[in-house]
Amino acid sequence: MAKLPDGIELSKINPKYLHSNSTSHVWAFGAFAELIDNAYDPDVDATTLEIDIQKVGNMQCLTLLDDGVGMDKQKIKKMLSFGYCDKDTYNNGESYKPVGLYGNGFKSGSMRLGKDALVFSQCSQSACIGLLSQTYLEAIGADSVIVPILEYSLPDLNRKNDRQCLNNLEAILQYSVFESEALLKGQLNALKSSVTGTKIFIFNLHRLQSGKVELDFQSDRKDIRCPDPYMADTTNLDCRPVEDVPEYKRSLREYCSILYMRPRMKIIIRGHPVKSKYVSKMLYLTEDHQYKPSWMGRNDKPIKIKIGFSCATDCNENYGLMLYHKNRLMRAYERVGYQKQANERGVGVIGVVELDFITPTHNKQDFYRNDHFNSIMSALATKLNAYWNSKKEIQNNDIGKLPDWTWVQCDQCNMWRRLRTGTDGDSLPKQWFCYMNKDAQYNRCYEDEEPDAPVDTPRRKANNKRNTEPLSQVR
Amino acid sequence: MAKLPDGIELSKINPKYLHSNSTSHVWAFGAFAELIDNAYDPDVDATTLEIDIQKVGNMQCLTLLDDGVGMDKQKIKKMLSFGYCDKDTYNNGESYKPVGLYGNGFKSGSMRLGKDALVFSQCSQSACIGLLSQTYLEAIGADSVIVPILEYSLPDLNRKNDRQCLNNLEAILQYSVFESEALLKGQLNALKSSVTGTKIFIFNLHRLQSGKVELDFQSDRKDIRCPDPYMADTTNLDCRPVEDVPEYKRSLREYCSILYMRPRMKIIIRGHPVKSKYVSKMLYLTEDHQYKPSWMGRNDKPIKIKIGFSCATDCNENYGLMLYHKNRLMRAYERVGYQKQANERGVGVIGVVELDFITPTHNKQDFYRNDHFNSIMSALATKLNAYWNSKKEIQNNDIGKLPDWTWVQCDQCNMWRRLRTGTDGDSLPKQWFCYMNKDAQYNRCYEDEEPDAPVDTPRRKANNKRNTEPLSQVR
Repeated sequence: MAKLPDGIELSKINPKYLHSNSTSHVWAFGAFAELIDNAYDPDVDATTLEIDIQKVGNMQCLTLLDDGVGMDKQKIKKMLSFGYCDKDTYNNGESYKPVGLYGNGFKSGSMRLGKDALVFSQCSQSACIGLLSQTYLEAIGADSVIVPILEYSLPDLNRKNDRQCLNNLEAILQYSVFESEALLKGQLNALKSSVTGTKIFIFNLHRLQSGKVELDFQSDRKDIRCPDPYMADTTNLDCRPVEDVPEYKRSLREYCSILYMRPRMKIIIRGHPVKSKYVSKMLYLTEDHQYKPSWMGRNDKPIKIKIGFSCATDCNENYGLMLYHKNRLMRAYERVGYQKQANERGVGVIGVVELDFITPTHNKQDFYRNDHFNSIMSALATKLNAYWNSKKEIQNNDIGKLPDWTWVQCDQCNMWRRLRTGTDGDSLPKQWFCYMNKDAQYNRCYEDEEPDAPVDTPRRKANNKRNTEPLSQVR
Repeated sequence: MAKLPDGIELSKINPKYLHSNSTSHVWAFGAFAELIDNAYDPDVDATTLEIDIQKVGNMQCLTLLDDGVGMDKQKIKKMLSFGYCDKDTYNNGESYKPVGLYGNGFKSGSMRLGKDALVFSQCSQSACIGLLSQTYLEAIGADSVIVPILEYSLPDLNRKNDRQCLNNLEAILQYSVFESEALLKGQLNALKSSVTGTKIFIFNLHRLQSGKVELDFQSDRKDIRCPDPYMADTTNLDCRPVEDVPEYKRSLREYCSILYMRPRMKIIIRGHPVKSKYVSKMLYLTEDHQYKPSWMGRNDKPIKIKIGFSCATDCNENYGLMLYHKNRLMRAYERVGYQKQANERGVGVIGVVELDFITPTHNKQDFYRNDHFNSIMSALATKLNAYWNSKKEIQNNDIGKLPDWTWVQCDQCNMWRRLRTGTDGDSLPKQWFCYMNKDAQYNRCYEDEEPDAPVDTPRRKANNKRNTEPLSQVR
């Protein structure tokens, strides 16, 4: 870039802005989603993300550990700054697009969940530690946000020993949860097990006005629960009691299971893998529709909609449209058409749609509801109503409620395999691998998925992911 | 503040972040509200804000001119940085609280409306010009946000003539709509008519995907209209056609008329003053209620609710709760209880409530819908239902539809006066002044308002506002 003109001042960031900026996430899980997207996106390309609670000293920390490509010092600096998003350079083809867009996900997400965040990362070139800490900035009376960063060379984790470097180390030791450099290095060494990756510690977790930690780690030891989800709507005394808040608003495990339209990355919460739901493949009486609004360009692809009945046990509560943007959930169970009426019409019907060309809102929990969005929703409502009417004779029959096809994700390569007609998904073992498939064409992890399967699911062979060059080197 | 440790780097702001950050305002008027709040808030304390469209050269500009206390260089720098909000130091007593909170209103608001903003400000010490311009930063290939600022001494508008200063001048001349320093000084000189004040030019106005400027300046020459307001909900085919979008979502004039619970500052749009609506004083059959949730502290004041029937001609469409935070509108016509049903119950009933202790959302267009908010809304729904039931016998009578009392705002001092019973508000002259009041106790601009009037409306004597010291010197 050009050299900046002399004497023109930088726009600065007040430490208080870290909190202000995070308030866009009213719902705590919206903040989680940002951090999960960061691991998922093609610039990091993690196979597995582990979300956990960990006590360090006396401090309860939320941790996120991914096995992605990791970051060098330059990338950590961008991560701790605002608006530096070069994810679009990693646009790996049509259907593995980055969710990240604003270069604000880590800041808004982490500072929504806690006051402080410590990042350990190891890429192929180096290992780094970065601190984004409101506690630190308050303590030193900083008038703008500064971010202590340490860089270590590989493989021996050596660093420079000058005054500047020691200042960074001192700040990190004093205001992170780790009290010695040996402990810091211990964390970096732990990352080596997956060759590259990133571990985030979030601490001084967000508390409610009552003083209680917002997230609930006690009620379910395998989950993280949000007792106070945004959007709980009790203004309608007659129809919508508080208990009606859908489970995905309260259970991180449930939310993660529907977070991506074509689930790829394995998410592990508190040691237990999330069973991803491939919603569009879990329906019965499925129909595929297309719709091209009049305002769309001649060469634009029409919108694809999959409509069917939910097979889930909660099908009488959780139904409506699943709206995704670049594979990521924006709205779940959005009721349209008949479903907005207080009768049985439309109950149990789910529509799955990906609207990449509509702008998501700032916190990525909805779409910008402009005329284009509205016209699409009207059309989808009409389609859903027509689907319902066409299924009149079978609506109330208690048919088997098995999906048209049973699909299962391999626990080794993360690919989705279609099982033989009539296979009951519930009868499958807890862990399922490709070799268990009775279809000989798709019973090995190195086989591609069927064409009908998500074309973007990258082939992952267990333990040899690192044989391919990290993305950052391929560019 | 303490000196920052050597060698720890600043968190920076990418020029792209200016856009990212502005996307929190899905609705253009939400961005206007931020800029109006800035003039209204006690640190600026403007009597009048003029919003206009102005052509400079070939460039269509949105302008906002206030007669507040103005800014020196230090304050402009903060305005063009992120999170510097010291408005809470201007907490002028119980009921004139600043709306500003996050130190992000100018950035998110102006960059939502246009790509570039130029600020002229004159305070008692100096005159300054500042530029926040995405066009400029793109053109020079800046990798972080820098903000050209010029400072002039008073009264002759002299400035330093060093290289740094000239660099700032050059950037402003090349990327603002003004092509010479004489033209810039002309704008500063124009501010002198109100002694101190600020004028903001916003240009390269936001365009829709179609290429058309988003805001509509043509349909109504006295207004600024938003043809594509957020929240137009067409997902419900049966009940809610697009035309049902309330007028305040589409008309800036209408939105400004209800923007503050206790209207103070005069807002002039395109040369024509906005007629403020003091909603809580425009009801009939008004009842005052109080409610103290069980979770409130013993010393907390209960929530006050004013409930009544709307006298407005649109009373069959615009009814529900008006929810304010620190005097500023968060939600208008929020239907609760009976009003959510598709029948006549609750139609026309308005409730006015100020919820200062509930956190507003990031874009200040709603409250954080947590359990506290929900419990309050439930209680308000119950109260509104009870009110409706108690008025059963008169609900459908076409009674006079005059407010219980007629209140009018003086066009000189901005204070509200109660008129004699039976006075028809529509019969009043277009401009109304205190001396026209038949109540001898309140017929001069120097008289305080009645106790029932908003206690926070500052006494404003025409043309002698500047006799009092500017707030910034009193501190």
